Amino acid sequence: MTTREPRRRGRRASGEDTRAALLAAAREEFTERGFDGATVRRIAERAGVDAAMVNHWFGGKDQLFTATLELPGDPSALVRSVIDGDAGTLGERIVGMFLQVWDGGPGGVRGGPMIALLRSVAAHPSAVRMIREFVSRAILRPFVTPVAPDRVDERAALVASQMLGLGMIRYVVQLEPLASADHPTIIALIGPTVQRYLTGPLP
Amino acid sequence: MTTREPRRRGRRASGEDTRAALLAAAREEFTERGFDGATVRRIAERAGVDAAMVNHWFGGKDQLFTATLELPGDPSALVRSVIDGDAGTLGERIVGMFLQVWDGGPGGVRGGPMIALLRSVAAHPSAVRMIREFVSRAILRPFVTPVAPDRVDERAALVASQMLGLGMIRYVVQLEPLASADHPTIIALIGPTVQRYLTGPLP
Repeated sequence: MTTREPRRRGRRASGEDTRAALLAAAREEFTERGFDGATVRRIAERAGVDAAMVNHWFGGKDQLFTATLELPGDPSALVRSVIDGDAGTLGERIVGMFLQVWDGGPGGVRGGPMIALLRSVAAHPSAVRMIREFVSRAILRPFVTPVAPDRVDERAALVASQMLGLGMIRYVVQLEPLASADHPTIIALIGPTVQRYLTGPLP
Repeated sequence: MTTREPRRRGRRASGEDTRAALLAAAREEFTERGFDGATVRRIAERAGVDAAMVNHWFGGKDQLFTATLELPGDPSALVRSVIDGDAGTLGERIVGMFLQVWDGGPGGVRGGPMIALLRSVAAHPSAVRMIREFVSRAILRPFVTPVAPDRVDERAALVASQMLGLGMIRYVVQLEPLASADHPTIIALIGPTVQRYLTGPLP
């Protein structure tokens, strides 16, 4: 009937493949329907796995949503590739990484995670808690804590303010010239801000 | 029946009072219901004026929404008070002005305009056009154009990215310590970023 196979039984690949398939399916579903409209059942169908796998791998819809906001692929490798290198240009590498992730995640709409996040926060106040968790897991712990000389929470919130604002302007408001500027341009413009928030002297 | 008077007939004050009453009512209505849920009729009732006044003063619901995002009070006086003064601290004065407006507009919820904007963009794609118009009217024309040495649109988009991001973090995500930091603290932290975007050398 359909070209998609809703459930592949039998030779399913490894657990990590299931997890990745669920994440890709969840990104599509949350982008299209927002947090409230998305269902675990439909995400599992899109991924071609049993709905119980969502609880098994993520613990529930809330945690699955938070996971979709995070870095695809191997997060620890991605984080290492950003953290390693000249500490004075860490801000630039962070901006570059977020652009790379947001501009085109695997199978995703351009800016999809940002749009999903916005739809969800607007419709679902508890999504705010998830964004706070996302900031803590995707920004604070991997990038700020290892390099910040002091005032870690303050620096993390400042970095988050600039990165969320960039995401809003580029993907949601689509304000030119930032909406279509290439990565090196945006990195050069906004990297120094993130760098100052991370390691610069704060008043 | 009710303590509110839905329509005061007879001695209505000057036109500017009607306009201000409509703006205050619209801020409440858009914050509570978002763009789609808000109705011109209900806004007019809250303001105690005839619904035809919305078209008369603003041209329609779209333009009324854009107007609610702008500076309350006398915008030209407010803009002058920000523009006048040391050009090297203009960024700080802009951050201060937005905090003042967003933290407590007249009769408004703290962060109300930002929350209304977010709800509206999430539910109503055409609100994106309104935000672009808002950026042009509230940021680009009054603040960036008079001082930017070059690349006016780029600078305006950069300022908008930082200000929208600050609004998201402070009012929507409510991430500490930026959610409860006082104005001088935030001005000192974020003012230099806005200043660089306005007048600094761009790469």
